[in-house]
Amino acid sequence: MEYRKLKDQDEDENGGGDDIESRKPLSVTNVPTLGAATVDWSKWKLKIVVVVALTLLTSSQGILIVWSKRNGKYAYSVTTSNFMVEALKCGISLLALARIWKSEGVTEDNRLSTTLDEVIVYPIPALLYLVKNLLQYYILEHVDAPGYQILKNLNIISTGVLYRIILKKKLSNIQWAAFILLCVGCSSTQLKTNSDAVLQTSVEGWLMAIVMALLSGFAGVYTEAIMKKRPSRNINVQNFWLYVFGMVFNAVAIVTQDFDAVMNKGFFYGYSFITILMILNHALSGLAVSMVMKHADNIVKVYSTSVAMLFTAFVCYFLFGFKLSLTFILGTITVAVSVYLHAVGKQR
Amino acid sequence: MEYRKLKDQDEDENGGGDDIESRKPLSVTNVPTLGAATVDWSKWKLKIVVVVALTLLTSSQGILIVWSKRNGKYAYSVTTSNFMVEALKCGISLLALARIWKSEGVTEDNRLSTTLDEVIVYPIPALLYLVKNLLQYYILEHVDAPGYQILKNLNIISTGVLYRIILKKKLSNIQWAAFILLCVGCSSTQLKTNSDAVLQTSVEGWLMAIVMALLSGFAGVYTEAIMKKRPSRNINVQNFWLYVFGMVFNAVAIVTQDFDAVMNKGFFYGYSFITILMILNHALSGLAVSMVMKHADNIVKVYSTSVAMLFTAFVCYFLFGFKLSLTFILGTITVAVSVYLHAVGKQR
Repeated sequence: MEYRKLKDQDEDENGGGDDIESRKPLSVTNVPTLGAATVDWSKWKLKIVVVVALTLLTSSQGILIVWSKRNGKYAYSVTTSNFMVEALKCGISLLALARIWKSEGVTEDNRLSTTLDEVIVYPIPALLYLVKNLLQYYILEHVDAPGYQILKNLNIISTGVLYRIILKKKLSNIQWAAFILLCVGCSSTQLKTNSDAVLQTSVEGWLMAIVMALLSGFAGVYTEAIMKKRPSRNINVQNFWLYVFGMVFNAVAIVTQDFDAVMNKGFFYGYSFITILMILNHALSGLAVSMVMKHADNIVKVYSTSVAMLFTAFVCYFLFGFKLSLTFILGTITVAVSVYLHAVGKQR
Repeated sequence: MEYRKLKDQDEDENGGGDDIESRKPLSVTNVPTLGAATVDWSKWKLKIVVVVALTLLTSSQGILIVWSKRNGKYAYSVTTSNFMVEALKCGISLLALARIWKSEGVTEDNRLSTTLDEVIVYPIPALLYLVKNLLQYYILEHVDAPGYQILKNLNIISTGVLYRIILKKKLSNIQWAAFILLCVGCSSTQLKTNSDAVLQTSVEGWLMAIVMALLSGFAGVYTEAIMKKRPSRNINVQNFWLYVFGMVFNAVAIVTQDFDAVMNKGFFYGYSFITILMILNHALSGLAVSMVMKHADNIVKVYSTSVAMLFTAFVCYFLFGFKLSLTFILGTITVAVSVYLHAVGKQR
């Protein structure tokens, strides 16, 4: 059940992103003219909207998980719900596309048909997540679940490193420092009294954790590369292809992991109102992640999901009377300083 | 006994500083000529030497405390040992002065005699520490000892704020961020499983902790102001007067707190080899603090004592098999990033 919980929390990383609001592809030129200033501002406005959306969706996701847990453990099959999330994202992307075709007509950039050259890269993120999820089984033989939550923060560092290496984007020294602090701060907020056990992790455990962080970081960076490779390409088409492969890989997961349960009890066995809310939320967060990848970047994504995590804890504090520990508060301050440093540390 | 322990740890803050190595008062002009570059380098060399000395002395201080504790609690009277520390610093300053008088003769800057105008400010730091130490009694009624160790880190923030306000020196935004991180990081490294209790501190407890942080910060900043008011004034003369008042205030403490014990058992009752080592160490650290105040500043002092604290823990880890917790490691990383940010965050 622990694995399912973890997998469920990871699910939002599977990318995706609807573009109902912003139909015009953004200009990628950055020529400093008077016109460019306007473009920059609309670009910023869009960035802010998607980041706020991602943060809110991710936090409500955490709250929904806590809420659903109040009635016990998952009664439904997580593989089927993951499949439903992919299918929903696929459906929303198609609907958005249909509206665009109606108003703008079919163009080179928004037609669904694709070339092998274009589509060949789309299964890669889904494949990377699949490998990562399989690896999770093995890593949990070396680390307990709270320790795993701590080690997951290595994703932050791996994302920064791969973002630098693969996307060739530079972070300033201060932004690197901020990134280390983000990792430290997030880890602090998740510390439990028994977290020290993670220090006894074996070498194999550490290696697996690092490989997993790299896989996860690579999947994120790769998705960004796909979304930005052709900036004028409509995001809904890109999403559609991403999620089609997501559906395929999740179908494989259903067959290999939950075949008997689904056959005997039915596909939607155990689904409740809250299950539907969670699927809806995961789908929307996935679409928000996709938009962040298209219009902002992985660094922004890491920051918004981290801030969302803190936000969730504060909401749980007020809603469910959760206690905030001193390590949580110190970690939150560290994350806040990190966000500030990332902003002021831009290359000058 | 807890109070004594705390007081003992605070003792190093009572300032002081010998200048046997650097007899020439440093040039304070900063005119960018070829000559000034040499002056700047010798100034930097001196800064590095005093900072390393302070860091090493402070760390060995922590180790000595742990070592002495192995044989149980303090067998001697802490008020008398504090008095001895002040007396020793006074003696060393006088010896250094005697050598200088022999080689350079008595000048306006190195003569011991003083004016009321000059000497009137010297008792203030000692007085502030006295008030702070008295306040410690009361604060420990509201907070337990581990919680008090956490709250003591507020000194870091208060020192920064008072340094800005009183000495009118600017810190860049990044240096402020680094300072907050230093406070957070140091607190993390000191967290114990029961540290969350500090969050239940009453409003009075918090207020007292803040007042104490301000007193301690003010004493530090005031000492720096005294040492730098007349840069050409020989540091040994300044130390002499600082420590004379330190002796006076500690004599008052002996009479009010340990009069009976000293009368019945004698002044040096319970002194051991390790007691003498600790007094020697405290005296030398005090002199190092004084040199840091004269040639560097309070910010440098805060950083070196913080790094010394971490250094102590690592030495204890290797020497006494102490365990390093995950919060300690995360706190150490935060402090390291803070040191880096302080260095790169200089006003540009």
